[in-house]
Amino acid sequence: MQALSHLAQDIASAKEQGRYRTYLNLERRAETAPQAVLHAADGPREIIVWCSNDYLSLSHHPTVIDAVADAVRGVGLGTGGARSISGTSTFHEDLEAELASLYRKERALLFSTGFAANDTTLSVLGRRIPGLVIFSDELNHASIIQGVRNSGAQKRIFRHNDTGHLRKLLEETDPDVPKLVAFESLYSMEGDFSPIREIVDIAEEFGALTYLDEIHSVGIYGEEGSGYAEEQGVRDRITVFQGGFGKGLGGAGGYIAGPASVIDSVRTFAAPFVFSTSAPAPLVAGALSALRLVRHDSTQRDLPRARASELKEGLAARGIPVISRDSHVVPVLVGDPHRNKEVSALLLGDHGIYVQPVNAPTVPEGTERLRVTPTSRHTAEDVQVFVEALDTVWSAAGLPRSR
Amino acid sequence: MQALSHLAQDIASAKEQGRYRTYLNLERRAETAPQAVLHAADGPREIIVWCSNDYLSLSHHPTVIDAVADAVRGVGLGTGGARSISGTSTFHEDLEAELASLYRKERALLFSTGFAANDTTLSVLGRRIPGLVIFSDELNHASIIQGVRNSGAQKRIFRHNDTGHLRKLLEETDPDVPKLVAFESLYSMEGDFSPIREIVDIAEEFGALTYLDEIHSVGIYGEEGSGYAEEQGVRDRITVFQGGFGKGLGGAGGYIAGPASVIDSVRTFAAPFVFSTSAPAPLVAGALSALRLVRHDSTQRDLPRARASELKEGLAARGIPVISRDSHVVPVLVGDPHRNKEVSALLLGDHGIYVQPVNAPTVPEGTERLRVTPTSRHTAEDVQVFVEALDTVWSAAGLPRSR
Ligand SMILES: Cc1ncc(COP(=O)(O)O)c(C=O)c1O
Ligand SMILES: Cc1ncc(COP(=O)(O)O)c(C=O)c1O
Repeated sequence: MQALSHLAQDIASAKEQGRYRTYLNLERRAETAPQAVLHAADGPREIIVWCSNDYLSLSHHPTVIDAVADAVRGVGLGTGGARSISGTSTFHEDLEAELASLYRKERALLFSTGFAANDTTLSVLGRRIPGLVIFSDELNHASIIQGVRNSGAQKRIFRHNDTGHLRKLLEETDPDVPKLVAFESLYSMEGDFSPIREIVDIAEEFGALTYLDEIHSVGIYGEEGSGYAEEQGVRDRITVFQGGFGKGLGGAGGYIAGPASVIDSVRTFAAPFVFSTSAPAPLVAGALSALRLVRHDSTQRDLPRARASELKEGLAARGIPVISRDSHVVPVLVGDPHRNKEVSALLLGDHGIYVQPVNAPTVPEGTERLRVTPTSRHTAEDVQVFVEALDTVWSAAGLPRSR
Repeated sequence: MQALSHLAQDIASAKEQGRYRTYLNLERRAETAPQAVLHAADGPREIIVWCSNDYLSLSHHPTVIDAVADAVRGVGLGTGGARSISGTSTFHEDLEAELASLYRKERALLFSTGFAANDTTLSVLGRRIPGLVIFSDELNHASIIQGVRNSGAQKRIFRHNDTGHLRKLLEETDPDVPKLVAFESLYSMEGDFSPIREIVDIAEEFGALTYLDEIHSVGIYGEEGSGYAEEQGVRDRITVFQGGFGKGLGGAGGYIAGPASVIDSVRTFAAPFVFSTSAPAPLVAGALSALRLVRHDSTQRDLPRARASELKEGLAARGIPVISRDSHVVPVLVGDPHRNKEVSALLLGDHGIYVQPVNAPTVPEGTERLRVTPTSRHTAEDVQVFVEALDTVWSAAGLPRSR
């Protein structure tokens, strides 16, 4: 059919532009991670994964694994319904209570993905608060962008982490309309933090609500591991927190924590929340146990950061450019899509090191990068091996070094 | 803040209209389902669940439970990334291959929810096929409605299951524009089937693609359990199938199966697919084992239907009106939101029977109903007890009987 051949052409041109994605089949065994078995066409092969968001290796933590196995044996897999139709259990209630208490908010709410948490919540806020204007960082995640778009609200995009620009846009906006500033604490493709405290100061000055995505910092920052706002001492000044279990918490799913009115609006008016099967109890049990681990035991918290520091030092010593030095995420600038694929392929082929290249449109053209993420299970020695390997590959690809 | 007090007022009026949802906390123990423990404010209580979509009780099947437990012990919980960034495993690949083979399509694709499968796929089709007009049944699920809306495509809504109206709308549309008919095989709030064969005939006559949501029929209809299109002998004439694991398959998540061009478009251009952590391997392992169970063992397949027949006979004998007699879903017409809540409360309070009342806006006003779903674990005796109980409550509530 004509319509389908149109789609096929679309894909052909995506392939030409190097934008077509292939997936590696990985067996991330619990005992050996970050080592994994890559199942490729020519057979299985041992590699080390350097691009997972499982920062604290909680997906493989025995306590989390036991929580999942116990829950599935006790109450089975699926809930069989949406939250309001037989799809709520003690696991769901306890996890929401734990999140509300961690973020010191009235209530919290679970979603099947972090993407849905952002998309759904922002959509509802925009549609239920008449006249809302949303101020959104230009590098916000696709899920925030989609939520803002679907909300139908007016939007103002401020330059990345540019508080002067945010202030200017707020000044230009009618003081009487309701406002919301939507941003992330840790931009995971950049590896940089937002100036949370300044943004909160400005938002309060203009009477704007704040919506903060902490998905890449939960578990790793703050004394209780709630995220970077906690570390910055502004946890109580954020209106709505968003986060998820799919990164540092080693599971899957998303959440928001905030005022009862916000939670109730989503529970009542958001079709993707109301008309969707709730998360399986074993998954929720796993998330709850991971969250309690990070909250009450901080021994693992600093490991990804420590390894990231060593990694950044090692790369700097070799003149390999890193985009930001802020956080536990280390984006290495390659600056060209084909070079980026080449470097990644050499790392995998010659050194058994897997780092997925990140190309446009995920990041701006000309800033193509390797997003390298040390986890708590990477050792100082792993870091050294990685630096050596990248150094070799960098030279082989003839990439420029910084001084 | 003003914006939040606006939301609070919104909720207050939803409460007044009886539209605020409260959730029951259920402990659906694997050994005793459909019996469950209701954890209420005044303590725990044994009840029987009559409103779960776990039609085949697969959430509690030992094979499914073992698959989940084995997978979590082997490879842990979360995948740590999107499908293209370390988030693909043999479980994901095998499940997609199984789905493609079951639906006899080139490829299949997993989503974290059935909601996302519909929303994301329809959005992409509308945005990537220039000029696409989508013909959508007026009673399509919220996720289809949202996908059609987000697609930006022109839409034509046809009256529920009205092939004459569909034909008329197709005739009124430019013959040269690409067209897609989006519908469900089993409308789960109505309990009725769509005339799939007629719709497919008409779609082919007008050169329209077909998009069929089989989420409530997978596992229960067709020789291999792929759904109602298979039972009707038109499996090979549907362009794109949508389904999910959260109903009859006892898990969670969604899928599509269709031509490679459609799958590739979603994989490449759909932000909610590309930029979201993939489903945890244990969940995927559970879905795979459930799917293989229904495909290769049909012994459970007819049980929900058999129980539903007994239930419909029993209710008919007492003059209690049922909206449709087609399928394994038995919607009992109450016709008033407050009566509906009352009947549900009496069933639970006096008889330990849990059926969630379904009120507007989920169903049209004046058609408020109890959506009763027998599962493979309900016995003929359970059905009798249910009929007796509803009979008593029906009289107590003074509801009219049909002749
Ligand atoms: C900043 C940010 N927000 C939201 C998400 C979506 O979360 P999830 O992967 O759970 O859908 C991601 C990651 O994909 C993200 O990086
Ligand atoms: C017809 C239909 N499609 C899609 C969905 C969404 O599936 P899920 O519950 O997996 O999000 C549902 C149920 O909620 C449904 O009834």
